[in-house]
Amino acid sequence: MSSEPFVPPKALEEGVMNSFQLIEEKTKRLTLLTQLSQILNSSLDHREVRRRAMEAATQLMNAEVGSLLLIDEGKDQLYFEVALGGQEEAMKKMTLRVGEGIAGWVVQHGIPLIVNHPETDPRFFKGADEKTEFKTRNIICAPVTIKERRIGVIEAINKKDREGFNEEDLSLLMVLSDQVAIALDNARLYQELEEMFFQTAESLAAAIEKRDPYTGGHTQRVTRYSLATARYLPLSPLEIKWLKISAVLHDIGKIGIDDQILRKPDRLGPEEFKQIKEHAAKGAEILNPIKQLKEIIPGVKYHHEQIDGSGYPEGLKGKHIPLIAKIIAVSDTFDAMTTERPYRKALSREMALTELKRCSGTQLDQRVVEAFVRAYETGEI
Amino acid sequence: MSSEPFVPPKALEEGVMNSFQLIEEKTKRLTLLTQLSQILNSSLDHREVRRRAMEAATQLMNAEVGSLLLIDEGKDQLYFEVALGGQEEAMKKMTLRVGEGIAGWVVQHGIPLIVNHPETDPRFFKGADEKTEFKTRNIICAPVTIKERRIGVIEAINKKDREGFNEEDLSLLMVLSDQVAIALDNARLYQELEEMFFQTAESLAAAIEKRDPYTGGHTQRVTRYSLATARYLPLSPLEIKWLKISAVLHDIGKIGIDDQILRKPDRLGPEEFKQIKEHAAKGAEILNPIKQLKEIIPGVKYHHEQIDGSGYPEGLKGKHIPLIAKIIAVSDTFDAMTTERPYRKALSREMALTELKRCSGTQLDQRVVEAFVRAYETGEI
Repeated sequence: MSSEPFVPPKALEEGVMNSFQLIEEKTKRLTLLTQLSQILNSSLDHREVRRRAMEAATQLMNAEVGSLLLIDEGKDQLYFEVALGGQEEAMKKMTLRVGEGIAGWVVQHGIPLIVNHPETDPRFFKGADEKTEFKTRNIICAPVTIKERRIGVIEAINKKDREGFNEEDLSLLMVLSDQVAIALDNARLYQELEEMFFQTAESLAAAIEKRDPYTGGHTQRVTRYSLATARYLPLSPLEIKWLKISAVLHDIGKIGIDDQILRKPDRLGPEEFKQIKEHAAKGAEILNPIKQLKEIIPGVKYHHEQIDGSGYPEGLKGKHIPLIAKIIAVSDTFDAMTTERPYRKALSREMALTELKRCSGTQLDQRVVEAFVRAYETGEI
Repeated sequence: MSSEPFVPPKALEEGVMNSFQLIEEKTKRLTLLTQLSQILNSSLDHREVRRRAMEAATQLMNAEVGSLLLIDEGKDQLYFEVALGGQEEAMKKMTLRVGEGIAGWVVQHGIPLIVNHPETDPRFFKGADEKTEFKTRNIICAPVTIKERRIGVIEAINKKDREGFNEEDLSLLMVLSDQVAIALDNARLYQELEEMFFQTAESLAAAIEKRDPYTGGHTQRVTRYSLATARYLPLSPLEIKWLKISAVLHDIGKIGIDDQILRKPDRLGPEEFKQIKEHAAKGAEILNPIKQLKEIIPGVKYHHEQIDGSGYPEGLKGKHIPLIAKIIAVSDTFDAMTTERPYRKALSREMALTELKRCSGTQLDQRVVEAFVRAYETGEI
């Protein structure tokens, strides 16, 4: 019929269909990779990015476990971040030296690795399995590199289809590792900037505070007490961040108060006290132009308001006083009572606590005092 | 020979190979998408992310032009960011109302769109083509949505293979659009935090400055002059950022100086002057604990050093004085001369400039004075 060589149509079809399925499979995994990269990059929280990175490795490699090991710069060690149900705690206490184990080898040499028979590989570190009663059948591991600096490795353990990892897996893991590196780096940059902000605010607040010779460390303590109290109140992580900044800056209005009033060793006269009272509103004025800080202004402006309306600057009552201000008020009162003034001794912490309870509901917010007391009793204050 | 229906082997092979090639093509584009997403996410600079987004759309869609249109919230308008060789300027001046043109329709309805015959589509806005002498043959456009909020659209114009855009293109563009949204959002968050930092530093610096009644606006002017001067010196964008923070905080050490010295309307005596001089080292001390700010400390600490070694606090000479401090020194000197003091009148700007030139090489750095003079002559100071 024709001069072409005979090829059985069905066999041909099957052969082609196999490659066809392989490529379809590859397309699916690339689509998954794209989705995972999206999830990875949509957080700037370092801890959250780490968690997502491990989950992504597990899912993309179709493995039982994924983990991320990061280099602890000072110690030349790798520490674990594990996405392994129930075993996290045991694993987290473990570290590997650079060069030790598969992960240590990969981070040292910067070369990705598949080990489908770890029991016969001298590089394999048996410690992790022994501690966690987990059996490593096979392992795939790629270095994580940011701007030419190796910061750790990402690995997946125990491929679910029991065939072991292959080159295709490795090339996908390497792409994921680059995405992880970027997401981690962005989160690090964001976190560093945030720390720079906090520390600068703290340093300037401390410098401003130093003009008042009787309040050494006050700002720092009020911030610490407020954050401890907040743990027993229904505040979101974002609200806690605002509370922290607000507590750090609560007294910055004192920058506008005269030296001689701040330094006066005696009790203040009515006119002087009137001037001191201005610090709350003055602090709010200083921060008013900063639109990103509008959430913290209530804490600065109203931390001297009292529940019964006898506070300042506006004489707000009860529910009209913002929660953030009520928290700072309790911490501020406690610290004022427990530190010495030239004209009076410090109260003991126990006596100050009794005093807080006594003022609860009239001067101070009841719910906040309760939270403060709980934090105190658990040793957080 | 057999009962199977006759299928010519070659035709079968070709048919299968066509689907095969299609899937291979898809794999290639997914790989490209992964690479583009990596490039997109590896910057936290909003402007840079925008540029990369347009380039990514152009490349992924195999189009002649890609653009990103973002909503200007206040104005209910879309403004262009275009990746079109040579036409950027004409396009950037153009805006579309929400609802106007293909892009306006897409952002209004939140539905992606392919328009392969724009000339017959009533939604098509001809203004852009008319202004740029560009011929739109076909267009593909997808909304860009962050946390359920539509912030703009991404589009590609003129598919290079002349066949028009298809559904496959659209699904890829939609994935890209999600990646763009994430990268833009991260850049926005980073930028907002950075602004919050700058503004807080500025507000606190301004509050500290206010204690000295003779220097209203000094910090702000010194910062402005320093940044203008830096344009004529070989500083990297990062160094310019450090210079800005350093200029903002250069006088914060004054927080440690007594009110009565700051407020004294007469010339200061030697002992008082000695106290004033301490502000440079005190400022550095306040910032010392902040490791992320170590680059700005030289500007704060050494902005009163002089080239001939007669300055303070250390009496550094010439090349031992950091550039950032030399820049702040020139700006500081110029502002001091051009503002009135109770004990002397302000010099005119021209006279102050002559004075700067006279001190160039002895008190002030020659190269920095030259840069300052250039910025002055172009009207930037």
